[in-house]
Amino acid sequence: MRTLEYRGNATIGLGEKPIPEPNKDQVRIRIAYAGICGTDMHISDGQHPRAKAGLTMGHEFSGVIDKAGSDTTFTAGEHVIVEPLISCGTCYSCRAGFPHVCANLGLYGIDQDGGFADYCVVPAQSVYHLSDSVPLVHGALVEPLAVGVHAVRLSRTKVMDTVLVIGGGPIGFFVATAARQAGAEVHIAEINPFRRRIIEEMGFSLFDLPADGDMTMRDEVTDGKGFDVVFDAAGGASTLRSAVDLARVRGEVVIVAVPPQERVISYTPIAFKEISFVGVRVYEYYDFKRAIQLLEGLTIELSKLYRVFPLAQYQEAFEAAKQGNGVMRVLFFLGEGATL
Amino acid sequence: MRTLEYRGNATIGLGEKPIPEPNKDQVRIRIAYAGICGTDMHISDGQHPRAKAGLTMGHEFSGVIDKAGSDTTFTAGEHVIVEPLISCGTCYSCRAGFPHVCANLGLYGIDQDGGFADYCVVPAQSVYHLSDSVPLVHGALVEPLAVGVHAVRLSRTKVMDTVLVIGGGPIGFFVATAARQAGAEVHIAEINPFRRRIIEEMGFSLFDLPADGDMTMRDEVTDGKGFDVVFDAAGGASTLRSAVDLARVRGEVVIVAVPPQERVISYTPIAFKEISFVGVRVYEYYDFKRAIQLLEGLTIELSKLYRVFPLAQYQEAFEAAKQGNGVMRVLFFLGEGATL
Amino acid sequence: MRTLEYRGNATIGLGEKPIPEPNKDQVRIRIAYAGICGTDMHISDGQHPRAKAGLTMGHEFSGVIDKAGSDTTFTAGEHVIVEPLISCGTCYSCRAGFPHVCANLGLYGIDQDGGFADYCVVPAQSVYHLSDSVPLVHGALVEPLAVGVHAVRLSRTKVMDTVLVIGGGPIGFFVATAARQAGAEVHIAEINPFRRRIIEEMGFSLFDLPADGDMTMRDEVTDGKGFDVVFDAAGGASTLRSAVDLARVRGEVVIVAVPPQERVISYTPIAFKEISFVGVRVYEYYDFKRAIQLLEGLTIELSKLYRVFPLAQYQEAFEAAKQGNGVMRVLFFLGEGATL
Amino acid sequence: MRTLEYRGNATIGLGEKPIPEPNKDQVRIRIAYAGICGTDMHISDGQHPRAKAGLTMGHEFSGVIDKAGSDTTFTAGEHVIVEPLISCGTCYSCRAGFPHVCANLGLYGIDQDGGFADYCVVPAQSVYHLSDSVPLVHGALVEPLAVGVHAVRLSRTKVMDTVLVIGGGPIGFFVATAARQAGAEVHIAEINPFRRRIIEEMGFSLFDLPADGDMTMRDEVTDGKGFDVVFDAAGGASTLRSAVDLARVRGEVVIVAVPPQERVISYTPIAFKEISFVGVRVYEYYDFKRAIQLLEGLTIELSKLYRVFPLAQYQEAFEAAKQGNGVMRVLFFLGEGATL
Ligand SMILES: NC(=O)c1ccc[n+]([C@@H]2O[C@H](COP(=O)([O-])OP(=O)(O)OC[C@H]3O[C@@H](n4cnc5c(N)ncnc54)[C@H](OP(=O)(O)O)[C@@H]3O)[C@@H](O)[C@H]2O)c1
Ligand SMILES: NC(=O)c1ccc[n+]([C@@H]2O[C@H](COP(=O)([O-])OP(=O)(O)OC[C@H]3O[C@@H](n4cnc5c(N)ncnc54)[C@H](OP(=O)(O)O)[C@@H]3O)[C@@H](O)[C@H]2O)c1
Ligand SMILES: NC(=O)c1ccc[n+]([C@@H]2O[C@H](COP(=O)([O-])OP(=O)(O)OC[C@H]3O[C@@H](n4cnc5c(N)ncnc54)[C@H](OP(=O)(O)O)[C@@H]3O)[C@@H](O)[C@H]2O)c1
Ligand SMILES: NC(=O)c1ccc[n+]([C@@H]2O[C@H](COP(=O)([O-])OP(=O)(O)OC[C@H]3O[C@@H](n4cnc5c(N)ncnc54)[C@H](OP(=O)(O)O)[C@@H]3O)[C@@H](O)[C@H]2O)c1
Ligand SMILES: [Zn+2]
Ligand SMILES: [Zn+2]
Ligand SMILES: [Zn+2]
Ligand SMILES: [Zn+2]
Repeated sequence: MRTLEYRGNATIGLGEKPIPEPNKDQVRIRIAYAGICGTDMHISDGQHPRAKAGLTMGHEFSGVIDKAGSDTTFTAGEHVIVEPLISCGTCYSCRAGFPHVCANLGLYGIDQDGGFADYCVVPAQSVYHLSDSVPLVHGALVEPLAVGVHAVRLSRTKVMDTVLVIGGGPIGFFVATAARQAGAEVHIAEINPFRRRIIEEMGFSLFDLPADGDMTMRDEVTDGKGFDVVFDAAGGASTLRSAVDLARVRGEVVIVAVPPQERVISYTPIAFKEISFVGVRVYEYYDFKRAIQLLEGLTIELSKLYRVFPLAQYQEAFEAAKQGNGVMRVLFFLGEGATL
Repeated sequence: MRTLEYRGNATIGLGEKPIPEPNKDQVRIRIAYAGICGTDMHISDGQHPRAKAGLTMGHEFSGVIDKAGSDTTFTAGEHVIVEPLISCGTCYSCRAGFPHVCANLGLYGIDQDGGFADYCVVPAQSVYHLSDSVPLVHGALVEPLAVGVHAVRLSRTKVMDTVLVIGGGPIGFFVATAARQAGAEVHIAEINPFRRRIIEEMGFSLFDLPADGDMTMRDEVTDGKGFDVVFDAAGGASTLRSAVDLARVRGEVVIVAVPPQERVISYTPIAFKEISFVGVRVYEYYDFKRAIQLLEGLTIELSKLYRVFPLAQYQEAFEAAKQGNGVMRVLFFLGEGATL
Repeated sequence: MRTLEYRGNATIGLGEKPIPEPNKDQVRIRIAYAGICGTDMHISDGQHPRAKAGLTMGHEFSGVIDKAGSDTTFTAGEHVIVEPLISCGTCYSCRAGFPHVCANLGLYGIDQDGGFADYCVVPAQSVYHLSDSVPLVHGALVEPLAVGVHAVRLSRTKVMDTVLVIGGGPIGFFVATAARQAGAEVHIAEINPFRRRIIEEMGFSLFDLPADGDMTMRDEVTDGKGFDVVFDAAGGASTLRSAVDLARVRGEVVIVAVPPQERVISYTPIAFKEISFVGVRVYEYYDFKRAIQLLEGLTIELSKLYRVFPLAQYQEAFEAAKQGNGVMRVLFFLGEGATL
Repeated sequence: MRTLEYRGNATIGLGEKPIPEPNKDQVRIRIAYAGICGTDMHISDGQHPRAKAGLTMGHEFSGVIDKAGSDTTFTAGEHVIVEPLISCGTCYSCRAGFPHVCANLGLYGIDQDGGFADYCVVPAQSVYHLSDSVPLVHGALVEPLAVGVHAVRLSRTKVMDTVLVIGGGPIGFFVATAARQAGAEVHIAEINPFRRRIIEEMGFSLFDLPADGDMTMRDEVTDGKGFDVVFDAAGGASTLRSAVDLARVRGEVVIVAVPPQERVISYTPIAFKEISFVGVRVYEYYDFKRAIQLLEGLTIELSKLYRVFPLAQYQEAFEAAKQGNGVMRVLFFLGEGATL
């Protein structure tokens, strides 16, 4: 079968591997769509510490059950998506009920073969049924949407809160989507003109981070009290400072972004407004299910968010993903020739 | 009556004011002991933005009811301490139930005349009865102890948690005292040799912040999992980085210190360990009462924590307080000649 | 001016009072619409312990500023609604930041003259601006909607949760409306056929409480895990038992109803599923504002929920309200002859 | 080896089984002490639905490693105690991070052979090291103490809270012990004269539940505000009613007891005081470790809490345990002839 592999030395390329065989607790999936995420770009740039040469990349993918292990409840032909986390089961996090922040966390597509391939074999318990009302191409958006669902669920966002999401990339956009679904009035701060346009088309309000501490716009949209919750999904040079300044007394800042650089922070507004922070990582058990349900009900025009490439055009696809200018999410279509 | 006043231009000096008269909702207190806090040093250094020339300083004080307004429940002779916060009652914080983080928060001794004087008049509802089992000199410690009680109550500290307090100054020490009372195993990181000795004498374990990310000592004292809660009561150049590294998965960092400088922070460990932060400021309603009760039951030798000066020796007193070397807390005794 | 008054001895009747004059912190409102709530029926039945003869009833009302005290920011002609709570300011609840559960809580329309009258005078800080996009008749729905907003905000409802509301009366309906706004999938249990029809027309799913502990329907709609949150807005003979049985492990039961009778409860499922309960009462500061914003965005046909009577037909109005069969909420129109 | 078995038909008796062999992930423990818990009495009375004839009872026990599987980190001779929970790993609770409320929860001594025997084989991951500073006889108290630690940790008890524990049986006593360790002022309501004496000797305050709603004693000990947290570890006919009445506004009631009967509850005080409830079951991961640490530091005279019987006198032992009059906890000593 065809694969897109990391070759080591900051190079990627098409490969060929035998079609893998599932054991009785596993399923083999004929992959349909697979998204390119920031992590994939890190791998292809040789910056990911865990990715080894020979790895089939891709951790956001949808497909069709091709062969189901005898102890699973799946049947061939079922549309599915994969929750790509691999937890160790024995570390403190795993035993304390937080396997998604496992000390030894791995992902299909980073630590084991993933979804940039014709087929993938994964344990049945990582596989979620995708209802027929959701096209397979949207299934490839569930993983980043689950990040948004988790971030909002772990936050203190309550119905009718006023929320700011800093960063309108794919992650920020899906955080905002989940926050809007949570009944909040959502504003997004984003600088890239293409993304600003998409954000507006999708019905969100744009918010301009004040360069100089000017609180006029904040006070206008929050009735003078500041945002109830601010998500930082940009991690820019001064977005954290903005987040703290824009949050209300007893408000919350949610750390979604993971910029490689250290950023500056001032203690005083955090202490004086008794602000809370919470960091969020990927998703917990059941967030995937919730993300699928959210996706089923979404009425926004999802097709504006992605562009699809065949695997063979992986270079153009990665180029488009890196630019982030003209497209939110780049997807591979892998189902050529298959009955999906 | 005698006062110690801020004179403007970074100078302080003894003054003389008429004995103030309470109205029917107020009481007049004959002051016994009053502590010098970091804020008083900021005022005397001319660095406090709100303190005006002519102000009688001092916001941590105990005393004896001298005259009680007719609508109060106090009677002359009662031992009391003062909760020095002045809230506006109309801002968002005040109406939402957080008057201690009032947008217009003031304090007796900073925004209105305080306790470095023979007498002080305050509203009865800011005054707490001090039981006879607690000497008046200890009453002057209630204010900083209430900061510790509030910090621990607002944190997620649970019984049998393993807690680290960074900074063993008066505030860190009282945070640690409250955390130990909360049933936690408390470690304190402090560099000053005098304070290290006091900390050990008071039965706390000393913890050395790792310069280089070495987790050996952390893993030893926390059974490999990291601290459940880390309080930063130092706000040093890299204490925040240490706090985040030393906290466990889903652990909490409590921002107590308010250093004037910005500090650096890395998003990755916060997101990857889903760490929470919470900022804390002074104390909420009832924390004072709880601090008094805590004080009543404390069995540590409190006299090791302070040194008492007469008001006339204010220069030596401020000098001792600034050095922080040889004494935790400096107190004035104002009761000369009075029957306390 | 005209009033509808409680006359004592379980009788109500039309009355006449002088138009009240606002002081400088108050406003006089020309009342437009006022809703009849369960409490009004208790008063008229002589069952309310606090209502005194001579009281002008009505605590859910909208109107127009007729005269604004000099220290207020209101101007004549502004559309407004009233937050009817009167807190003492000195009890533990008030000082601890929960004035809505004040030990001495009163309401306009129960403890002081309310909104079944041409005019009402209230403190400006209890008055909320109603934007022009919301008709005055809908303004009279804000109070019960604020109960729903508060109940959902105090609960643990998170985006994409599956929620059950037991009781589809006005309160249950508005709780369900707020829960749906919070991004939950909302099911309502209701027995009255008229209300069942309205519930379905408004897009909610009906759920039948199992008489015999049969969990089939629960497992179908909750994927086998039970409801994340169950609101009891009925308080029926066995609704609490159902609530506990239908909730998931670590789920929550929200006590909204206040039936006069004691009900039975079994400890075992609460302990074994580690279920939480929370009681909710009226609304906190800012819930009104949030309810107004929610109302502004609602797309359901609100006119199906109420029927309007002139004050003179108060007997028919109370009759309709008591039956609860054919109408959710009964409103008085008081603006005859006025320019609203 | 000797065992004490459930024989079916509400009878128990001594038995003989072969010494079990551990596999590589398991350890064999030479049992030292094993406590009789309420559940054991239910089993012996034939009232436990899951206990099967032939079962070796006992789920609270300490002992010495006799043989350690090759993949474990234990060595023969180590003193240990066993966390007796057996979770399925696949139900919603297990996957959502709450295996201790597993839908299929089992315990050693109820669902599989337990500790009323010379030896027991259990998975190494259920075994906790007991430090030499704790005698083996106290190790048998860790299990019920872990129930107390878990109850307090899951509750909202904060340092310096005023707490009431209803029921001063072994469970209530250990809840109170954990709450006192959490820095609360703890009062216990108990009717049995023997237990009242022990409670007082252990330094707790006795509290008398008011028969008639009289709040005098409550107001005296809580400064008029009510208890911050009330634990119901009795589950008596009207203890729940008392718990709700005695709790403060926004206070918490913790459901620890699991009486077989349904009890009555009134919605009004729950709603009007916005009281929370939380149910608690056994213990979560790490509560055992915390209970061991708590035990190590306890300075109360634990020997007053238990009486030790040899296994052969199991009838007298069960009799003493059932009476609850003259002893808190009954323990078997099983180490005769062994080197412990
Ligand atoms: N916590 C988790 O589990 C998790 C999971 C997935 C991703 N992430 C992280 O989440 C972050 C966002 O991911 P992404 O894929 O959406 O990245 P992205 O495409 O780089 O999006 C970030 C967006 O923020 C914008 N931005 C940067 N500085 C800004 C500022 N000062 N004001 C307003 N907007 C600003 C960027 O605009 P420009 O394009 O003009 O720079 C960009 O559009 C990344 O750090 C990623 O690593 C975290
Ligand atoms: N949030 C609030 O409501 C509130 C209320 C009161 C005070 N505060 C703040 O709390 C902080 C502490 O107050 P304080 O009166 O205790 O101040 P302090 O006397 O300056 O104590 C701080 C202590 O931290 C030590 N320290 C500094 N860097 C350290 C490091 N890297 N490792 C270990 N220890 C380190 C200092 O040692 P050296 O003496 O050797 O520098 C000093 O002993 C201040 O920032 C104060 O403004 C906050
Ligand atoms: N907590 C607060 O602050 C607050 C504020 C306002 C109101 N409340 C309380 O909230 C409750 C609801 O108020 P409401 O005005 O909506 O009252 P309501 O009109 O009496 O509505 C209750 C609804 O529940 C239904 N019901 C009763 N038993 C049921 C069962 N077993 N299964 C399904 N449905 C059942 C009733 O049906 P039938 O009509 O057929 O009986 C009725 O439609 C009342 O107890 C009220 O006092 C509380
Ligand atoms: N949630 C969990 O995971 C868990 C774990 C273990 C046990 N439990 C449950 O916790 C409860 C307590 O266990 P236990 O072993 O301590 O039981 P216990 O020995 O029966 O203790 C209960 C105590 O409460 C007293 N009591 C009864 N009614 C009272 C009242 N009205 N006022 C004051 N005291 C009253 C009893 O006194 P008398 O002796 O005079 O009746 C008895 O001393 C049981 O229901 C048990 O099943 C729960
Ligand atoms: Zn792990
Ligand atoms: Zn204020
Ligand atoms: Zn009050
Ligand atoms: Zn399970």
